[in-house]
Amino acid sequence: MSWEEKVSEKRSQLRSKIPKEWLLEDEVLQFLKNEKKDLNKNLDSLCSKLENEITNSTILKLREKLLAQELTCFQIINAFCHRAALCHQIVNCLTEIMFQEAFQAARELDAKRPAILPPLYGIPISLKDQCNVEGVDTTMGYLGRAFKPKTKGEESLIVQHLREQGAVLYVKTTVPSSMMATDTASNTFGITLNGLNQNFSPGGSSGGEGALIACRGSLLGLGTDIGGSIRIPSSYHGLYGLKPTYGRVPYLRVDNSFQGRELIPSVIGPLARDLDDLRYFMSIIVNTCKPWIQDVNCVPYHFDFDRIESHKDYVVGFWYGDGVITPPPSDIRALKMCEAIVKATPGFKAVRWQPPTELHKELHDIAMKADIADAGVEIMSEFDASGEPLIDILKLMVLGEETPTCTVNEWWTLNKKAYAAKTAYREYYNKFAPEDKVDVIVGPITLTPFRPGDMLKTTLRYVLLVNVLNFPSLNVPVTTINRKLDTLMDTTKALSSEDTMVMDYWNKLIESDDVEGFPVSLQIMSPTYDDNIVCKFGSWLASQLAKSS
Amino acid sequence: MSWEEKVSEKRSQLRSKIPKEWLLEDEVLQFLKNEKKDLNKNLDSLCSKLENEITNSTILKLREKLLAQELTCFQIINAFCHRAALCHQIVNCLTEIMFQEAFQAARELDAKRPAILPPLYGIPISLKDQCNVEGVDTTMGYLGRAFKPKTKGEESLIVQHLREQGAVLYVKTTVPSSMMATDTASNTFGITLNGLNQNFSPGGSSGGEGALIACRGSLLGLGTDIGGSIRIPSSYHGLYGLKPTYGRVPYLRVDNSFQGRELIPSVIGPLARDLDDLRYFMSIIVNTCKPWIQDVNCVPYHFDFDRIESHKDYVVGFWYGDGVITPPPSDIRALKMCEAIVKATPGFKAVRWQPPTELHKELHDIAMKADIADAGVEIMSEFDASGEPLIDILKLMVLGEETPTCTVNEWWTLNKKAYAAKTAYREYYNKFAPEDKVDVIVGPITLTPFRPGDMLKTTLRYVLLVNVLNFPSLNVPVTTINRKLDTLMDTTKALSSEDTMVMDYWNKLIESDDVEGFPVSLQIMSPTYDDNIVCKFGSWLASQLAKSS
Repeated sequence: MSWEEKVSEKRSQLRSKIPKEWLLEDEVLQFLKNEKKDLNKNLDSLCSKLENEITNSTILKLREKLLAQELTCFQIINAFCHRAALCHQIVNCLTEIMFQEAFQAARELDAKRPAILPPLYGIPISLKDQCNVEGVDTTMGYLGRAFKPKTKGEESLIVQHLREQGAVLYVKTTVPSSMMATDTASNTFGITLNGLNQNFSPGGSSGGEGALIACRGSLLGLGTDIGGSIRIPSSYHGLYGLKPTYGRVPYLRVDNSFQGRELIPSVIGPLARDLDDLRYFMSIIVNTCKPWIQDVNCVPYHFDFDRIESHKDYVVGFWYGDGVITPPPSDIRALKMCEAIVKATPGFKAVRWQPPTELHKELHDIAMKADIADAGVEIMSEFDASGEPLIDILKLMVLGEETPTCTVNEWWTLNKKAYAAKTAYREYYNKFAPEDKVDVIVGPITLTPFRPGDMLKTTLRYVLLVNVLNFPSLNVPVTTINRKLDTLMDTTKALSSEDTMVMDYWNKLIESDDVEGFPVSLQIMSPTYDDNIVCKFGSWLASQLAKSS
Repeated sequence: MSWEEKVSEKRSQLRSKIPKEWLLEDEVLQFLKNEKKDLNKNLDSLCSKLENEITNSTILKLREKLLAQELTCFQIINAFCHRAALCHQIVNCLTEIMFQEAFQAARELDAKRPAILPPLYGIPISLKDQCNVEGVDTTMGYLGRAFKPKTKGEESLIVQHLREQGAVLYVKTTVPSSMMATDTASNTFGITLNGLNQNFSPGGSSGGEGALIACRGSLLGLGTDIGGSIRIPSSYHGLYGLKPTYGRVPYLRVDNSFQGRELIPSVIGPLARDLDDLRYFMSIIVNTCKPWIQDVNCVPYHFDFDRIESHKDYVVGFWYGDGVITPPPSDIRALKMCEAIVKATPGFKAVRWQPPTELHKELHDIAMKADIADAGVEIMSEFDASGEPLIDILKLMVLGEETPTCTVNEWWTLNKKAYAAKTAYREYYNKFAPEDKVDVIVGPITLTPFRPGDMLKTTLRYVLLVNVLNFPSLNVPVTTINRKLDTLMDTTKALSSEDTMVMDYWNKLIESDDVEGFPVSLQIMSPTYDDNIVCKFGSWLASQLAKSS
């Protein structure tokens, strides 16, 4: 069978899992594809009132209804399966559909309702196509991994945890082959579109998750982040996305690229529409599941979530730029909004966070070297396994046979450099007076949206260094692009040729009206490796932003 | 200058730092070298009553005397400098002598006695020749690193912590070149002998520390452990030696081989004669110094030390062998002594700890592969830097130019294997019923002493796997070799050719009477990565052993 035939077989296998009555007729399909910024509104009109109430709710609210027996698990699961099926037909965000298994699981949960409902009882959780689920593939966007359903024993520990806590698994979501890209495309599944604006990329590598959750086909899903892969799709869909510190959420038996590459480890974490949902989920996975009992790479460290919470007087570092790439007006505006809120809060303090430009360059250089350390050997072996051709967005990762891979000594030297750079960043933090020591840093993340295929016309600098530093980072939606306020950039002020490229791309975007209203997000990081404080401050900031808007 | 000339210059530089009045005359020197098992007794006769009281004390007792002003810092420092100078002339355990700086520091501490004495006020701490101290070399046993005194800015974080807490630095101690050996020899400093029995090796790589502390030239010193280097010299000198889990004691700016090799990381920790001293020291370094503020590789995790402590009902796993190498009669006897004590204690429980032999083999194989991953490139470059010849004990580490170094992909694969093996070991632990889940494991460590040069005639299997697993491990002296009880081994029962070799070596030792009374130690490990519980249980076990002897 040719690779093209294998692809069409996989695609029809996927499509065959959508119930007939949920398949869209061509003219409806075309209509939904043309109305590029109104998908949610249009999907609402295709779903029942109850379904819309459910998919527009939160995990915590649905749990209340489940506890009060005002909803059944089946009603909830059915609503999300329907919504996921519909939005997938437009934005192409799914790789595996497990509706029948989900219906069955939901019916069983309803039939055998326990006296005490487990914390995720009846809650649908979507999974990036790296998590192993019994009976379905984990392709990571590689055709060579298709048609190799995972066994029970291969199930990811996180998947086992989710089942134990009563969650229902129903879909797996698209990724770029290898996950080493921020656009979401593969030969096997094609291109995924942004769920809020089909003219744009969903970002990646957890692009399918971002699109699905933005379209309300899921409340919370699991992504992974080795270079922004949770935060970028969150940013492009106005979602909350947490890149935890290493070892918070178990990676055991989750497939990945570059496994065993401990420098800049990939971490797994949640994307969600609601931040309380995200924090609730994290507290369950950490405190209830205690993943460190089975995963030796997990740390036995508590994750607090208290819905009625008091806040300390935060010292907040505001990061207006790395000295290499100038954040666009939308980010500056978002940063000033947040800074104004902090400054207006008695007891809180805003300080300027401005590590040396050279250190930013060094951290970026380390990330770049780590990503091409094997010159693309692993990625090519995956493509060669099926004969599928290398995709364009990965061509920078594959240096060809004439380029030697790193020796182990070169690799250890890179690790030493990373330790030195992290230490230097730490020294910058330690130089502040005690009263000015920041609890969190608020900074830019994606800078500009991009159209499918334009991945390389923007920058990853503001996401990558956080992976090298292993800081927890939460993507927080702050505002949306407003072409009256977010004007053209003056390229004569560019700091570098890379800066010019990003400015040019921004200026082209701003000249076209379809970027109006696109989400503008910032990331909240903690130099103290404290996931709790990042999320806690995020909740406070989100509530203040809601008040001020 | 030839490398031999450089060597003699370094050695005379070292000798010149010993005050004339502390230099031993030839016949005394010869007498002390001939009386191979009585060094401490003989050194006592060369020191004053007060000096012997001081060097025979503990950190905690000396602190009481300092608090009561019954001793001065100078008296303490002078006593240890004298003792160190004397024992060094016999066992050759020092690489740097900083007596003048130490006297100066002690005088200043006495002159400016603070109202509240810092926790290590006036306490001498010896340092393995990896720690950077301003004004002196860090050679790691390499001639090419000699005559390059470190600057203030290069000082190891741990050295800065020690100074801040009032400790006095006075000596640095010998290591085998590269520290990747368990005998202690280098071209620059020659061979170090065991402090309790000069017919034997001190072990390594913290061999100088072991010998110095055993000869009461130090109460507590810092070693490092990447494959037993803290525990082995502790075992061979009847000392307590803690290999902490990674990130407990700061490694920042401590020189090392294979820096950036995160698989099986080297860890830094204390060797001491008194376990309360060791625990006190750890609690100061962790709780008071908070090393994670400056060292991004350190974990913000408390280390408890309570001198009046209550003990939980421990479940203790007794590990009688890995299925590859048979522990000698001395170890079996030591294990049975400990097991009997546990079984005789109401509420405590002894279980058999017996992971699969294949898993032990896999863990050992991973450690071996990691050690030769670069085929010796780094080690040879260090020898070539000065033109000194490669030393015999390292020949196994240097595979020659025809052997290629690991590629980064092979290295990542080895990391994956290590994660899988650690997970399998964890699964073995998780299979026990809750009431049988072990808090600690008690097992063999060095199996047999060895004579200088015989390093490869014994085994490292019982130490190496603990480094792969990243468990905390405490060496605890349990008994001494008793040739009436510890008889010949039946080589016909050997499990492997390697086992035969170790048995043969044991049998040869037992046939010679100079092994009588050599320390027999066991290691206490925790599968829960809990350094506290390892030390706490160690204290309890040591007190029970003291009672029963």
